[in-house]
Amino acid sequence: MPPTRFLALAVLLGLTVSSASPIASAGALADRVRVLEDQQAIRAVLIQYGDYLDAQDYGHYAALFAKDGVWTGGYGTATGPAAIQALMEKSMGKPAPGFINRTKFHLMATEQIAVTGDTATVRSRFTVFTADADGRPAPSRAGRYVDAFVREPGGWRIKRRTTYGIIPYSGP
Amino acid sequence: MPPTRFLALAVLLGLTVSSASPIASAGALADRVRVLEDQQAIRAVLIQYGDYLDAQDYGHYAALFAKDGVWTGGYGTATGPAAIQALMEKSMGKPAPGFINRTKFHLMATEQIAVTGDTATVRSRFTVFTADADGRPAPSRAGRYVDAFVREPGGWRIKRRTTYGIIPYSGP
Amino acid sequence: MPPTRFLALAVLLGLTVSSASPIASAGALADRVRVLEDQQAIRAVLIQYGDYLDAQDYGHYAALFAKDGVWTGGYGTATGPAAIQALMEKSMGKPAPGFINRTKFHLMATEQIAVTGDTATVRSRFTVFTADADGRPAPSRAGRYVDAFVREPGGWRIKRRTTYGIIPYSGP
Repeated sequence: MPPTRFLALAVLLGLTVSSASPIASAGALADRVRVLEDQQAIRAVLIQYGDYLDAQDYGHYAALFAKDGVWTGGYGTATGPAAIQALMEKSMGKPAPGFINRTKFHLMATEQIAVTGDTATVRSRFTVFTADADGRPAPSRAGRYVDAFVREPGGWRIKRRTTYGIIPYSGP
Repeated sequence: MPPTRFLALAVLLGLTVSSASPIASAGALADRVRVLEDQQAIRAVLIQYGDYLDAQDYGHYAALFAKDGVWTGGYGTATGPAAIQALMEKSMGKPAPGFINRTKFHLMATEQIAVTGDTATVRSRFTVFTADADGRPAPSRAGRYVDAFVREPGGWRIKRRTTYGIIPYSGP
Repeated sequence: MPPTRFLALAVLLGLTVSSASPIASAGALADRVRVLEDQQAIRAVLIQYGDYLDAQDYGHYAALFAKDGVWTGGYGTATGPAAIQALMEKSMGKPAPGFINRTKFHLMATEQIAVTGDTATVRSRFTVFTADADGRPAPSRAGRYVDAFVREPGGWRIKRRTTYGIIPYSGP
């Protein structure tokens, strides 16, 4: 190939190669966008956790846990959605058909979500309000969660949740 | 063109064509970024809703609604910003000039925002604190919103808001 | 170069040039992703501000301020992390070794974060709960922050925070 044509090709090639950098970084950019989406998806699980607890919908509540997700609390320990649902329904009772929540309000807040591939560590805070004698919402508990999350085929799930009461205080 | 040169061009062409895949997906990536931005913009409207209510700034409050946005509540129904502002000012009274809010605090939280093109469905929670006899913030109402949003030329606006009280309970 | 070959190259060049538009916009897209990441990073600072205050960890608390960041409040004014830490420890006292917070709960919420390059203006709300005589969380203060943030080599930091009480009311 004569030099000028080679040069012409090199210019083209140069254009293409120089464009390889943004093209390559498109992959990195997609990863960063995915992290932002993952954070949103995990935040949705934190919120639904409160929604389902208030609704006493222990089936959907338990489905927020991973297949080997561990529930630990005052009622003992259970592993996996089926066992968690069974423990909750045994401990809390199944709601009557047509149950409408009028007394509990979980307020989830201040999520800090660190995603690493298909796992994440998550810190957040909760405040629970319960209806007082006048029918007003009264704060009864305020605390924080430290969670391990895992990405399953169906989405992000809770692998392990540790609950700390702040007011009143309670250790994990 | 001799085969070798054609091959050289084909290699170049191949490079360019192979790069078409990330280039094409850049459009998809831009769409995903736009959804994340839309969620932020919608969240801002939810927050400003509380800000303007507390400030009794019913002009800016009403401007958060779409041109055919519907306000429904204890004072009746109104459609569009002008009618909503008029209803609020008739029902709540216009604040005195220089009014500073010292008694109401809307806390908006737990937005779950599903964007589909130029519309979105949004679920969120609110807690209202009012000043008690000692001048402290006392929770007076806790509930949730279910909203339809629409993208207008000026940005995202509320098309329809349904308010559910949890404590105290009130249906839509 | 014969016209046909020139055309062939032009086609290639055309492909490359036409691809320049998405490539160029990849830079703009990266900027938009960075803004979303910046908003998350700034939100984390707002949340940690409450975490460290509750933990009486004034070293980490002060490190959330920029090197020329200004703290202004009831104890006076201090500039830069070292001076802010010293002022807080003088005013609030250093916590005893092994201190565990059981009485204070800062709830940060409703961040509205406008990023412009390496600076940002931020509005948010806070509610402080303190343990009452029965050991329950009782809201004691509700207000809002207006902040200027700056990007430093180590990340986003508070350059200036103005605190407004809503209930009870207090000006900046």
